Amino acid sequence: MSAIRHALSTKREDDFAQWYQEVIAEAEMAEESGVRGCMVIKPWGYGIWERIQRLMDERIKAAGVENCYFPLFIPLSYFAKEAEHVEGFAKEMAVVTHHRLIGDGKGGLVPDPEAKLEEPLIVRPTSETVIGAAMARWVQSWRDLPLLTNQWANVVRWEMRTRMFLRTSEFLWQEGHTAHADREDAMAETLRALEMYREFAEGPLAMPVIAGEKPENERFPGAVATYSIEAMMQDGKALQAGTSHYLGTGFAHAAGIQYQDKEGTQQYCHTTSWGTSTRMIGGVIMVHGDDDGLRVPPQIAPQQIVILPMLRDDDGDAALLAYCEDIRRSLAAQSALGEPLRVLLDKRPGKATQKRWAWVKKGAPLILEIGGRDAAAGQVSLLRRDRLWNAAAKPDFRAMPKDEFLGIAAGEIEDIQVSLHAEARARRDANITRDVTSIDALATFFSEDKRYPGWVELCWARPTGAELEGVIKTLKELKLTIRNTATDAAPASGACVFTGRPAVERIYVARAY
Amino acid sequence: MSAIRHALSTKREDDFAQWYQEVIAEAEMAEESGVRGCMVIKPWGYGIWERIQRLMDERIKAAGVENCYFPLFIPLSYFAKEAEHVEGFAKEMAVVTHHRLIGDGKGGLVPDPEAKLEEPLIVRPTSETVIGAAMARWVQSWRDLPLLTNQWANVVRWEMRTRMFLRTSEFLWQEGHTAHADREDAMAETLRALEMYREFAEGPLAMPVIAGEKPENERFPGAVATYSIEAMMQDGKALQAGTSHYLGTGFAHAAGIQYQDKEGTQQYCHTTSWGTSTRMIGGVIMVHGDDDGLRVPPQIAPQQIVILPMLRDDDGDAALLAYCEDIRRSLAAQSALGEPLRVLLDKRPGKATQKRWAWVKKGAPLILEIGGRDAAAGQVSLLRRDRLWNAAAKPDFRAMPKDEFLGIAAGEIEDIQVSLHAEARARRDANITRDVTSIDALATFFSEDKRYPGWVELCWARPTGAELEGVIKTLKELKLTIRNTATDAAPASGACVFTGRPAVERIYVARAY
Repeated sequence: MSAIRHALSTKREDDFAQWYQEVIAEAEMAEESGVRGCMVIKPWGYGIWERIQRLMDERIKAAGVENCYFPLFIPLSYFAKEAEHVEGFAKEMAVVTHHRLIGDGKGGLVPDPEAKLEEPLIVRPTSETVIGAAMARWVQSWRDLPLLTNQWANVVRWEMRTRMFLRTSEFLWQEGHTAHADREDAMAETLRALEMYREFAEGPLAMPVIAGEKPENERFPGAVATYSIEAMMQDGKALQAGTSHYLGTGFAHAAGIQYQDKEGTQQYCHTTSWGTSTRMIGGVIMVHGDDDGLRVPPQIAPQQIVILPMLRDDDGDAALLAYCEDIRRSLAAQSALGEPLRVLLDKRPGKATQKRWAWVKKGAPLILEIGGRDAAAGQVSLLRRDRLWNAAAKPDFRAMPKDEFLGIAAGEIEDIQVSLHAEARARRDANITRDVTSIDALATFFSEDKRYPGWVELCWARPTGAELEGVIKTLKELKLTIRNTATDAAPASGACVFTGRPAVERIYVARAY
Repeated sequence: MSAIRHALSTKREDDFAQWYQEVIAEAEMAEESGVRGCMVIKPWGYGIWERIQRLMDERIKAAGVENCYFPLFIPLSYFAKEAEHVEGFAKEMAVVTHHRLIGDGKGGLVPDPEAKLEEPLIVRPTSETVIGAAMARWVQSWRDLPLLTNQWANVVRWEMRTRMFLRTSEFLWQEGHTAHADREDAMAETLRALEMYREFAEGPLAMPVIAGEKPENERFPGAVATYSIEAMMQDGKALQAGTSHYLGTGFAHAAGIQYQDKEGTQQYCHTTSWGTSTRMIGGVIMVHGDDDGLRVPPQIAPQQIVILPMLRDDDGDAALLAYCEDIRRSLAAQSALGEPLRVLLDKRPGKATQKRWAWVKKGAPLILEIGGRDAAAGQVSLLRRDRLWNAAAKPDFRAMPKDEFLGIAAGEIEDIQVSLHAEARARRDANITRDVTSIDALATFFSEDKRYPGWVELCWARPTGAELEGVIKTLKELKLTIRNTATDAAPASGACVFTGRPAVERIYVARAY
């Protein structure tokens, strides 16, 4: 059995970070823009985002949440109102100070000193403040509650170290913001959003996640409780792929979001916020990619089946293209995963094998190669991206009659969606360790020569304040963080790894992005 | 016959500008945000934008154009490269100069002087420069052409006088950018986009437009030719609702977009750009609104049919709601205008008549009121928003058996789409004057006591340079502008109104937004 020659030059096990950059480049998902910390999202990457947007938006609307659009700019004074909130953003934000350019007398342009803004404007890092101001106008009575809004938008956080999709100065996201009459209703919404994210990750993204509550030091600034979904990447690190916050009445106090209850008394609202972003695409790459490039789960693939006619620039091409077009039409009339199949007939010039490898690197779920002889024989040749290689280290093409393929195509697409999830789930579960019962054992576990050590689930006594700070410091020395406590965690048992006191809950500890 | 009491306090004929603001407020489409020149787009307004986005995006994709996302920020130096381009934007742009805030020692925040950017960043007013830089990377050979990209994004132009939807500092739009091998191919794309916009306006927006070429003084800065679609508002003014530009090779020279042709020679690309924005919503309001509020064309209505159960807070409500839900389900299973019907059962608390008028002001195409007795009798009561009043000055409800209604509902929706277009088309055509043959006659025409004078179609000799400047100045004194020359205009005849020379083409002259 000969060695497989992979489509990428870097293997995951050799240099995961380099492999990640290579997948993004070779799959033509995104590239550096020339603008510090900002990327250009190319058609294949943006197509995946469009699929994510559509499927997430359906879920948001189904929950009765209405989309709005709020300003890109937030006056500086709005931030001063929420000191605690600002503190958490480390104040690293893009500040607009001028509204005009003028010539500098040397052929260049400079901000016009005459056009300095009286009050600087901040490019939104998140929209709690400006949406809070709107909520204060919109909410008058208990009849106006709950107020459920969402926004799809770009936001900017001035990041010092950026990595495409995972941490960029500008990124795209949705931010849900809701106001409620009481704690119970707001907490129910916080957990509804968390469950929506969990189902979205496990479903369309085929990405297993732990949904749970973050420890108090990891809360969103100003939040009473912060929940997250955490996914395990193939290097064993955790990626926070979505968050949901119960904000108590703190933001309502700062923005003046009040309502008159049924008894006629003025009350402050309880608010929530929840968000997911283009960061999810980074997660999809690091969960499903392999040494041949990306593998896109069919539900979020811009194209699920790519048909590659093996054109020869001769008289036979017309019949071949007609045969391929007939297959494309038959497929497009079918459905899988609740939607019509998305099928591309790639007629562009170029060698068929080069085009095949381009689609392998992009991760199109099913690739169909069809030559003139296949067309004459009524055959197709089928390649599943998730099972690329056969035992002989060759691409595992399956030849079959066209009609047989048309009968199984939708089922293959659905099977790929399930298989990618099962594969990621098995890997994740195999890399969670539960038998670490001391700090020394934890240190030993993560210091061993394991390239991808995975996560450790620990029992702890949920220390707070200074004691928690000590725990965080200990973990930090091991380059570890607490990810979350699963909402469906088993009861804790035994002693707290950090304090020796009886444990009260389980936490996941991991290296993280 | 008694006088009709309209749902708005301002009539179009009394104060069109005030009426416009009132529709936006009463239909809950948008509101001032507290951030200078920026609006908050509320659910009904944003829902209309989502419909516009979806239908426009389908057309863009069908033309083979691929969506991408480019950075919000553009380095200052990119603008200096295109002096002519910048000139046209009057340099009124939002300038980011700092990337951090710090406390001012008095409890406030200020931009950190230590965090001043080496090079200021401009919040994109349009993306030619940054997309041009990407195209220069992406295009190498004739095989890479045409390169067809589009972006859905927010852009910022620092406007001194703003008006919601029509002119806001931040607005939402799509911007298409394409690169081609030669003039012919680029011009074909420019005209394809123009035709896409014309069909979109006349179709989904039910808004008749003149598609044509702008005069040279109205070209996009740096463009070789600029085309627009122009719609007539109910006050007779013109609204430019979309533009398409053939940019020649000027932008390609500035950005270095070159390709190797089949003979191996380096050539500069010919580029185009084309855009439409949230401004279209302002057009929809001013074309279709009436003295009772907005009337939304069914194709872009977030909800096409609103069912209002006349709840009485008694035991009968359950049966009434079940009856209404049954109707909702039957409607949602039907299609009109090529898509499933969008139907809302509005169960919120509140008086039925108040809710009716709220939906009338929002412009939902069909309103269904159903009381307990209707439910018992198997009836419904139907109100078409586009034909609100009967001869007795009462809302023109039509009662009919449920099954009869279910049989006509889709047809009513399609008829409303057609009727709104026909009404707007008849009004527009009736307000175009073609018998003005001198500047004096033009001045007289627009000085007469006509509140809404409409447009004048003139024949002219297409003067250029200083002679054109003279014409523009003459028109400016009459508060008039040249809108465009229709691509399907009849041949010119007679003498040029401005120069007396033989006329060579027809132009539309109008007051404009």
